[in-house]
Amino acid sequence: MDRERFAKQLAFILEADKEKEIYRQTHILGYKRQENDAEHAWHMAMMIYLLKEYANEPFDVAKAMMMALIHDIVEIDAGDTYAYDTAALATQAEKEERAAKRIFGLLPDEQKEEMISLFHEFEENQTPEAKFAHAMDNFQPLILNEANDGGDWRAHRVKKSQVVKRQERTALGSKEIWEYTKKLIDENVGKGHIINDDN
Amino acid sequence: MDRERFAKQLAFILEADKEKEIYRQTHILGYKRQENDAEHAWHMAMMIYLLKEYANEPFDVAKAMMMALIHDIVEIDAGDTYAYDTAALATQAEKEERAAKRIFGLLPDEQKEEMISLFHEFEENQTPEAKFAHAMDNFQPLILNEANDGGDWRAHRVKKSQVVKRQERTALGSKEIWEYTKKLIDENVGKGHIINDDN
Repeated sequence: MDRERFAKQLAFILEADKEKEIYRQTHILGYKRQENDAEHAWHMAMMIYLLKEYANEPFDVAKAMMMALIHDIVEIDAGDTYAYDTAALATQAEKEERAAKRIFGLLPDEQKEEMISLFHEFEENQTPEAKFAHAMDNFQPLILNEANDGGDWRAHRVKKSQVVKRQERTALGSKEIWEYTKKLIDENVGKGHIINDDN
Repeated sequence: MDRERFAKQLAFILEADKEKEIYRQTHILGYKRQENDAEHAWHMAMMIYLLKEYANEPFDVAKAMMMALIHDIVEIDAGDTYAYDTAALATQAEKEERAAKRIFGLLPDEQKEEMISLFHEFEENQTPEAKFAHAMDNFQPLILNEANDGGDWRAHRVKKSQVVKRQERTALGSKEIWEYTKKLIDENVGKGHIINDDN
């Protein structure tokens, strides 16, 4: 074992621990408290494995799971931006790029490059792994929110057009899950959990 | 999409959410609060991917990661047992077996069988995937505890023989990480974080 290399890997692993204190807008089941990034990533990685049969294309499961596990790590420096907060989203990309360099930069060089590349691959959303990981990034808070009687949508007075705009990327990873999502959105519009702004 | 099948998969995924409320003895970095099972599993899966070069044998990374993600799910019914609580450990296996049947039983039949088998494979600790996942199950709280100045060891007045007994299984998955672990244990005995009961 190269102790210097191992020390770098451990430094990154310990830094990642901070994701356990970054709280998202989504609440855990029962709406008891907000969910943190580590919990979200854990749930998403599990869903990638369990729901892989619905992916549009075959994909490398380990790669997609690791993508899920690290996709929010930049929020340690850049913070979480709510999916429907348009102003904050505009400056988010730049902050996240600096964060990626610093945090993945704790790793040995070739792992740093691998993780930055995996993070960019997720963001660019072009490969089968990224597309299915993105579908799960959308679908995980959606089903939690649905199970919580739409509490997060109601709290933020979210409109149907906003939910559709975010969720429709799910179709790139899984047409079947997008079909299910559309039905779920319409049901929640029907219940008054999501504001109907259809023209 | 078979809606009945999908409903079963979602029922399991939502049930798993309860892991976010099962708190372990280990504390997150900074000793601010106890870590929960979902956070532990997320950290462990990430470590499997990042530290795989130290495994004694080649292994299926996606399988080992999924094993890590679900290995504590039985604690939703059976609760967490501290690694050094001998009395509780004696009845734990039976409770966990019942829990595995109920919780994985929410899934469609063949996924239920796959997940129960993966859970047993982890428990039996015979395959390369199980051995490396176990090594990370040991090593993750070890490095958090070390980074927290041994707070958990001090709080429970843990003895060196207890730490060694638990951690020595790490050697089955990674001789290199076990060598590092031994050194780390001795350093923490030296600092008085772990009670020296060497004869």
